[in-house]
Amino acid sequence: MTDEIKTKEEDSTIKAPGLDGIVALESELSFVDGENGDLIYRGYDIEDLAENTSFEEVVYLLWNGDLPTQDELDALQSKLQEARPLPDPVLDLIRQAPDDAHPMAVLRSAVSALSFHDPETEDQAPDANRRKAIRILAQMPSIIAAFARLRNGKEYVPPLDGGSTARNFLYMLNGEEPGETAEKTFDVCLVLHADHGLNASTFTGRVIGSTLSDMYSAVTGAIGALKGPLHGGANVEVMKMLLEIDRSDQDPVAFVKQRLEEGERVMGFGHRVYETMDPRAAILRDMLEDLGEARDAIKWYRYSTQIAETMQEETGIDPNVDFFSASVYYMLDIDIDLYTTIFALSRTAGWSSHLLEQWADNRLIRPLAQYVGARNRSVSRDKSLAN
Amino acid sequence: MTDEIKTKEEDSTIKAPGLDGIVALESELSFVDGENGDLIYRGYDIEDLAENTSFEEVVYLLWNGDLPTQDELDALQSKLQEARPLPDPVLDLIRQAPDDAHPMAVLRSAVSALSFHDPETEDQAPDANRRKAIRILAQMPSIIAAFARLRNGKEYVPPLDGGSTARNFLYMLNGEEPGETAEKTFDVCLVLHADHGLNASTFTGRVIGSTLSDMYSAVTGAIGALKGPLHGGANVEVMKMLLEIDRSDQDPVAFVKQRLEEGERVMGFGHRVYETMDPRAAILRDMLEDLGEARDAIKWYRYSTQIAETMQEETGIDPNVDFFSASVYYMLDIDIDLYTTIFALSRTAGWSSHLLEQWADNRLIRPLAQYVGARNRSVSRDKSLAN
Repeated sequence: MTDEIKTKEEDSTIKAPGLDGIVALESELSFVDGENGDLIYRGYDIEDLAENTSFEEVVYLLWNGDLPTQDELDALQSKLQEARPLPDPVLDLIRQAPDDAHPMAVLRSAVSALSFHDPETEDQAPDANRRKAIRILAQMPSIIAAFARLRNGKEYVPPLDGGSTARNFLYMLNGEEPGETAEKTFDVCLVLHADHGLNASTFTGRVIGSTLSDMYSAVTGAIGALKGPLHGGANVEVMKMLLEIDRSDQDPVAFVKQRLEEGERVMGFGHRVYETMDPRAAILRDMLEDLGEARDAIKWYRYSTQIAETMQEETGIDPNVDFFSASVYYMLDIDIDLYTTIFALSRTAGWSSHLLEQWADNRLIRPLAQYVGARNRSVSRDKSLAN
Repeated sequence: MTDEIKTKEEDSTIKAPGLDGIVALESELSFVDGENGDLIYRGYDIEDLAENTSFEEVVYLLWNGDLPTQDELDALQSKLQEARPLPDPVLDLIRQAPDDAHPMAVLRSAVSALSFHDPETEDQAPDANRRKAIRILAQMPSIIAAFARLRNGKEYVPPLDGGSTARNFLYMLNGEEPGETAEKTFDVCLVLHADHGLNASTFTGRVIGSTLSDMYSAVTGAIGALKGPLHGGANVEVMKMLLEIDRSDQDPVAFVKQRLEEGERVMGFGHRVYETMDPRAAILRDMLEDLGEARDAIKWYRYSTQIAETMQEETGIDPNVDFFSASVYYMLDIDIDLYTTIFALSRTAGWSSHLLEQWADNRLIRPLAQYVGARNRSVSRDKSLAN
């Protein structure tokens, strides 16, 4: 975004396909500085947050504007803990979903159905909306982990008696304690994806919220938007590419060059907003190296950096956040087709924050369409012509 | 919308809160001429369509650009017929929803879950999307009717072997043939609500669709937006008002004057777009009179016209489409809290048409936010200050 923003004259009508370059609203949540490759949440650099805060602290920061004291953090963690178990009918819905259902469709349907079991769904008071945000954020990992296990014929694993979102998710997913490295790595992934300006899913949530519909409606819609290949989902394609390189024992450099020669896209590169490297990608790259060393699987880091260097030399394009998150999730034993649901789980922090912000000073979000269709037709004339 | 539309200069950034006065896209589907009180679908006046076409013909028109021949209409009707029965797991989901669940939340969840049972959910080919539009449109009445019966302890009624959407819906809802007047009246209601430019729910659907997400995701999101009191739902409030007048045996004129004196809103008046009377309201008013006479319940027409006249004298504001649809639905024995689901059922014609149009020439819809929050904060500094 350029620094100069002109305000539209009230009576004018301006056409901007795709709403490109139109500022729809003001936000205090996050700032994506594409020119300098910076991302900040509520004034803090993403590097600072990734290094010094947990996901729960970031959630508190986004919701409330400031980092929590220890007491405030403990209170949030205990509320998340309390809300983690799923209502039985929602677990049934997940159980009944076909094994090959799209995980994002299952997540969307389960979050939608959770609304039946929240006594405050229709209560739009600010405090009620904050409590709903806690419940949705707490239950999303439970939904994803439950589906991941049930579709593979495994038993549902209920949440732990305590611990972080990251630890609980990995425990419910794999049925065993994740260990410190995995928990910390996953926690940072959640921090990195928590918010990112007015992306398409966040915008969807705010448009729905602006009709004064409820938080479940808005988050359900946002999940649907994130499901789209132009938004979430690129890291799934990145991992497929890395696995293809690994399986066929190809040289990553030659692989990339051949793809480019054939005019094919290399997934996980470039970003609509960042002109330089996505700051989240740099953090993930370092984590991938550490995790690879700890797990004796440095090859994913090696393939990735070789691909990134080749892409930089050949096209000048930098990797984005999806490029390095792919193999991090892979090493955490997360099924590839679940990657976008993890994006959703993390971004729920941002979606709910944007909804709270939207409702604090609501205004319907509604642009115009220009009618370019037919005019002056008559049914009786056209029907008699057809006979 | 004024006739003069300026195109935004490519490198400029323009702020337009709520996207007011911004043209986001071009559409050939419907034109709302607020100044003259006209609504057209694909070139045909809404009065012409209401008088001379069925809902199925309008659906075909919106999807394809022209009215169907008899063969084309028969083919559409038989495809709708085939798709009406609900998959068992979706019927289970409706059965498991609490009796007091919001009907729009049930509809949203059931449509979301239908995606699991459509073999073409993830197929974005234009023909596959047209077939999905048929299935969603066919199954929505089945969902609404099933929930309406099951929550009242009644048996689920499967669809008829043939007949229109209107006839099938009323039959599945009430367990008996609706008769010609009721079917025709309801059919016209569906025609009137089928599309209406880029309203908030249609816009939501197109935003979700623009990420190349699937039709179920987009329609699920649109239902969530329509659920909001600033969008759908006003006719529910209108009916409550009419019932209050009826129960307390008040003079409608005095009732309205008192409300206005107390600074209270009278529901069902005014429209964001129409400067004169909403053309759909005029059609519904006439239908309300006919139905009232046929059913020996002219009082709803009498109350409504008296209220509308008083409002016109006192405020100069005209009734909108919700004002007269309320008592029409009431006389068709539809539970008051289902009115917004009927709006959704009808508007699915428009939502799906807008999605087909969006995907025919897709472009991501994504405006900007202006960051107005904090800057230059440091976690370690702020944490040490807190201790």
